[in-house]
Amino acid sequence: MSDQPSVRQPSVQRIDDLFSKLLAEAEAGGYHLNPDEEFTRELVESLIVNIDRYDYPSCPCRLAQGSREQDLDIICPCDYRDPDLSEFGACYCALYVSAAIAEGKGEARSIPERRPSKGDREREGREKAGGRRGKSSDETTGRRSDLAKELDYPVWRCKVCGYLCARDEPPGTCPVCKADKDRFERFI
Amino acid sequence: MSDQPSVRQPSVQRIDDLFSKLLAEAEAGGYHLNPDEEFTRELVESLIVNIDRYDYPSCPCRLAQGSREQDLDIICPCDYRDPDLSEFGACYCALYVSAAIAEGKGEARSIPERRPSKGDREREGREKAGGRRGKSSDETTGRRSDLAKELDYPVWRCKVCGYLCARDEPPGTCPVCKADKDRFERFI
Amino acid sequence: MSDQPSVRQPSVQRIDDLFSKLLAEAEAGGYHLNPDEEFTRELVESLIVNIDRYDYPSCPCRLAQGSREQDLDIICPCDYRDPDLSEFGACYCALYVSAAIAEGKGEARSIPERRPSKGDREREGREKAGGRRGKSSDETTGRRSDLAKELDYPVWRCKVCGYLCARDEPPGTCPVCKADKDRFERFI
Repeated sequence: MSDQPSVRQPSVQRIDDLFSKLLAEAEAGGYHLNPDEEFTRELVESLIVNIDRYDYPSCPCRLAQGSREQDLDIICPCDYRDPDLSEFGACYCALYVSAAIAEGKGEARSIPERRPSKGDREREGREKAGGRRGKSSDETTGRRSDLAKELDYPVWRCKVCGYLCARDEPPGTCPVCKADKDRFERFI
Repeated sequence: MSDQPSVRQPSVQRIDDLFSKLLAEAEAGGYHLNPDEEFTRELVESLIVNIDRYDYPSCPCRLAQGSREQDLDIICPCDYRDPDLSEFGACYCALYVSAAIAEGKGEARSIPERRPSKGDREREGREKAGGRRGKSSDETTGRRSDLAKELDYPVWRCKVCGYLCARDEPPGTCPVCKADKDRFERFI
Repeated sequence: MSDQPSVRQPSVQRIDDLFSKLLAEAEAGGYHLNPDEEFTRELVESLIVNIDRYDYPSCPCRLAQGSREQDLDIICPCDYRDPDLSEFGACYCALYVSAAIAEGKGEARSIPERRPSKGDREREGREKAGGRRGKSSDETTGRRSDLAKELDYPVWRCKVCGYLCARDEPPGTCPVCKADKDRFERFI
């Protein structure tokens, strides 16, 4: 776009720092970066370019809209990483890979785009405001709120990794995958 | 109090060690120590003084009773850290701060005391023995036990960070915030 | 057994590497390796022998069958570690110990075998296929599936540490205890 701010190439130091941070966080949470370091460093560089451009590390392999709200599901690690790791052994960019592939016991396959189209995402967003996942809102909201009434705290779910916690508000950072607070949704 | 044991000033080595431990645990769990290292080291020193005095690191900014049971909610990290981080960007002592403040993007505001008064804590403790959080005990205990009957294990909640796990007993240490076993409560 | 492949003694390097990995993972998850390093390194060596023999680190103190499915509950950390840590302050092998014992404040006691007999494990497996934990299958499966219907995702439980998460499938690795995906069970 014409009004896109010009973005400088990230310094080696910044790439080193983010690479080390992502590597440590991945291993701590039971995830694995792609062991092809040259390839992985290129993705890390693209993440930094996106941080400079948008103020958040949107997925290097997808087109961002430039608004955090609209890109929330593709901020890296994206909402689709874990299902793709389960099904294909790698995320859409192959930044994250399964343990088997990290150990050289398999190879990443080609990965179809799991992200719903813009229209479907918007429709889903409107439905979530009422009920969820294709269930009619009367049916689920009513029952879930019955369940919630029995518990002392709401239960929050990290949309990236599925981490659950019970607190008045979601944590500032997911302790497992380090996703930000706005990546949590009310689960119960 | 007159029978308070005299407590020596902690050595630099002990302050270094606890500072490093808290820093590593905070980052691993998605938390942040106050980046003002001089200030933070003073709080760490106070925590060590409290460990020597009471055998647990009670909050440096609150008056401890000297009994673990009575001070359980203010053993650092206290039960109020996470709500204060959400609302004010820092805990009561400002030992822990939000990501934004850790990165210099904001400043800690003054934080009112969130801890209930001694009378209210005692009343709440008695109520918890029956029902919870102001709900009548008949109402919630009955329903929760119905819910528990449907599950294979009790669900435990860390009162500090909200971590949930399903096991016969709570873990010895919360994997997220490193709180001790007695900081867990039955959730379902 | 006569067809058991011969297994070489692990190199010091491999022992160092696995020892460091287990130590880091234990501390990160709120667990503690036995502080008697010589003793612990011997157990680590036995784990490597089992990895070479069976392709998984089955418990050094129990007789493995050699099939992952049958030995799943005794892959280290075993399903019995956490209850044994709660009750006895150490796991069956004393590879993992409680915080108190790690700090020299107590001593590990002798630990009876908590693992059910082969016959009981097989019976339990058959029952789990229907209901659970001695409840009749009609009673629990029906109710649990009612509960599941109210939630947007299934809830998975790590059989080793009790970690809970809500996602379409369990994670590849438990973020808390690093157990593999097949150590998870459906909880709700």
